Amino acid sequence: MKRWLDSSWTQEMRVEIDTNLMMVPMLGEKEGISEKDIEKLQPLIQNIHGQLEEEKSQGRLPFLTIPFDLSLAPQIKKFVQGTKPWVENFVVLGIGGSALGAKALQTALSHPHYNLLSKTMRKGFPRLFVTDNVDPDGFKALLDLLEVRKTLFNVISKSGGTAETMSQFLIIRDLLKKKLGNRKEKEHLVITTDPVQGVLRKIAEEESFQSFEIPSLLGGRFSVLSAVGLLPAAMCGIDIEELQAGAREMAGRCQNPSLWENPAYWCACLSILSYRHLKKNIRVIMPYGDSLKGMGEWFCQLWAESLGKRYNLKGREVWNGQTPVTALGATDQHSQLQLYMEGPGDKVFSFLGIKNFAGLIPLPKLYPKMEELAYLGGHSLNQLMQAEMKATRLTLAQNGRPSLLITLPKINPYTIGQLIFLWEMETYICGRLMGINPLNQPGVEEGKKMAYAFLGRKGFEREGKEGESIFKPNKKYIL
Amino acid sequence: MKRWLDSSWTQEMRVEIDTNLMMVPMLGEKEGISEKDIEKLQPLIQNIHGQLEEEKSQGRLPFLTIPFDLSLAPQIKKFVQGTKPWVENFVVLGIGGSALGAKALQTALSHPHYNLLSKTMRKGFPRLFVTDNVDPDGFKALLDLLEVRKTLFNVISKSGGTAETMSQFLIIRDLLKKKLGNRKEKEHLVITTDPVQGVLRKIAEEESFQSFEIPSLLGGRFSVLSAVGLLPAAMCGIDIEELQAGAREMAGRCQNPSLWENPAYWCACLSILSYRHLKKNIRVIMPYGDSLKGMGEWFCQLWAESLGKRYNLKGREVWNGQTPVTALGATDQHSQLQLYMEGPGDKVFSFLGIKNFAGLIPLPKLYPKMEELAYLGGHSLNQLMQAEMKATRLTLAQNGRPSLLITLPKINPYTIGQLIFLWEMETYICGRLMGINPLNQPGVEEGKKMAYAFLGRKGFEREGKEGESIFKPNKKYIL
Repeated sequence: MKRWLDSSWTQEMRVEIDTNLMMVPMLGEKEGISEKDIEKLQPLIQNIHGQLEEEKSQGRLPFLTIPFDLSLAPQIKKFVQGTKPWVENFVVLGIGGSALGAKALQTALSHPHYNLLSKTMRKGFPRLFVTDNVDPDGFKALLDLLEVRKTLFNVISKSGGTAETMSQFLIIRDLLKKKLGNRKEKEHLVITTDPVQGVLRKIAEEESFQSFEIPSLLGGRFSVLSAVGLLPAAMCGIDIEELQAGAREMAGRCQNPSLWENPAYWCACLSILSYRHLKKNIRVIMPYGDSLKGMGEWFCQLWAESLGKRYNLKGREVWNGQTPVTALGATDQHSQLQLYMEGPGDKVFSFLGIKNFAGLIPLPKLYPKMEELAYLGGHSLNQLMQAEMKATRLTLAQNGRPSLLITLPKINPYTIGQLIFLWEMETYICGRLMGINPLNQPGVEEGKKMAYAFLGRKGFEREGKEGESIFKPNKKYIL
Repeated sequence: MKRWLDSSWTQEMRVEIDTNLMMVPMLGEKEGISEKDIEKLQPLIQNIHGQLEEEKSQGRLPFLTIPFDLSLAPQIKKFVQGTKPWVENFVVLGIGGSALGAKALQTALSHPHYNLLSKTMRKGFPRLFVTDNVDPDGFKALLDLLEVRKTLFNVISKSGGTAETMSQFLIIRDLLKKKLGNRKEKEHLVITTDPVQGVLRKIAEEESFQSFEIPSLLGGRFSVLSAVGLLPAAMCGIDIEELQAGAREMAGRCQNPSLWENPAYWCACLSILSYRHLKKNIRVIMPYGDSLKGMGEWFCQLWAESLGKRYNLKGREVWNGQTPVTALGATDQHSQLQLYMEGPGDKVFSFLGIKNFAGLIPLPKLYPKMEELAYLGGHSLNQLMQAEMKATRLTLAQNGRPSLLITLPKINPYTIGQLIFLWEMETYICGRLMGINPLNQPGVEEGKKMAYAFLGRKGFEREGKEGESIFKPNKKYIL
């Protein structure tokens, strides 16, 4: 790996966060965040900083320590090598945190039309499908497409009780048995689940399926750097050790106790101030680069589930949460920007920039006499992309809309690893600053129980009746 | 077509809108909308209704009349037939309204892995690529993939001045000349633009490129049922006449002067009341079905650009706009639902349901002794999907969060045509109720000019200087 040979590489590949367009000097007293407001958070940050080490050492924050598990990548890579000779399709059966990480990593680090490439162009790695829904037509369409004998299925569920994933599992389990018979089927399924608990672990052990572990206290949305995200990535030939190394690089920077120098503390402080002081209830992630769109969508889960909480840690009802939205630059300038410029001042923006794209695409000098085309000739798509991002940031600022810019020097596993760690830690710290629990998700339980009731699962009769009882539709309101 | 043979078909395929969970009887006085509030809008609606006919007859609202242009589809289908023998790839070069419609139609009506199918499975129709960004790496990756001699490019820009699309055009124009020589290249490019104005029309005429027209007063976000959306759809074998017929069916229902019976008026009234009275500044579109995700994204542009306006028609500063978000059910229950349930009460929901999926996927009865799996056996993915949507709607209602449900009897061009027309007209009417102009987009001009300046285009020096002048970054705020 290049970075071990050249010590300046790590420095060159550092992710940079420019928050100038969030702050009072550039946005003014009314629209910006002041140093004074930030300083007021220093004691809280100090307090949290003190507790972090203890929590980590007790194993309560595995998302912070998992990049340091050096045994994980070799284990995954060995598995990948073993399956490579026969696997043409790798199918992830998972939903939410069991799917979004794999999708984000592939969008960021594989060819944009990866599944359309020939096996040679894919360097012998299989195609990747992430089926994160239970749409009957979508699922059937996928199964029609795949030759089962060349397909490896990866069931991912921490609890082993996720209805959507377990339904997919039942269908695939049955299919494998019917198509391949009892001996061969074992090779075609790999399970990623809790090391001890849940039915999936039980099934893996009783039936000797291949399996990977998700550390017990690692929630789905924080699991991308465990086997949950790393196995699918490695199956596509992504350098997962570099991903981990990038995360460790950011982890190093995020050990600094000073909020003025610690990227996670700094971003978390700006986030809570944009929410509480500037009253921004929407956070827009705006990557300028197709490869980062999946990272935006992965972040949307992380942010929404972690911070959307009805009660704070003292039990007071707070209905807390900032709604995350991903908008792709430059594309969504032609979709959402009109609203961002002229709609309500309810948004704070996080731009993601790429300093150096992999290639340079020059714009030829054609039609020199047509003014609408002539000015483009001699430039490049690269320059156009950068000009558009800069113009969007500055015109938003002129309208009093705050933004920060995270710049990745290049798109590679090392920079993506940094971004993952930064966002995970920012989210966790922001939750702590808000006084809520960023690691649970109590709000979806009621809906799950009601769905169980509608499917006739025993023990959930009350939830079913309560749901039905409010639903007395009036025909007048149906058109 | 079946529906001409069987008169009950049209009735069966009617899109239905259930708004019960928006209203006071089910949500209560505080969280619901009352009939009294709706009645108050009746005079305004009556006023708008009276003006609509006149505006239509003056040709000012082409999005309402274009489904009735019966000459368009045959013209497009003839073109498609002519290119079918040699075209393997159809590439849309367009952004925003020139891309989102084509993407939405394909996601809704083609196989979910359409580009992975063999040509036989695609019934001889070409693969479709919509390149709606200027990411240099993304663009290069696409070009690497395509054999130019078997590829047809469709440049779409109403004005002919869109920087992103014109940049793509320059690259492709140059590529065709180099790879194919002057005679052949004409076959590989088809232009969709204004009938009279702009450089693209000029180029089409001077160089005799094949072309289609976008009616002069038809804005990008309302253009999906013009050649902008219909040509790419027809290239993939989608029945565009059924799309138009569906739109006409909804147009018929939307001629009713009573807001209690006119789906567009009814939805527009509920929308403005959810924004103004209930203070919902976020509108979540939640389709339960993979095929409808693109429709949600298409709607997001329509809603954001049409309603996000700084000034009302009287020139008063209003900073109007409701932020649209698409969340896919059941997938995003595992990503956003926690926030929707327990976060701030700032959202109103539009569920999209599919009454009958194309196929039925049963869940096998395996593991009868494991309670977490046993209850699923004997059901189907279809039932699971419906149970989840119902449970999500009802638990949101229990938390006081309003929602409506649009049900498509099936996914086909006829029902999708209805949905398109409904949403276009609802958006327009809602803009009129809000007192703003839903057809323009003045807020993106400043950013465009600044980007021109950064690329050195003459005449935009002032915008460039103004942009640079506010940008004096402090190193302290860069981490």
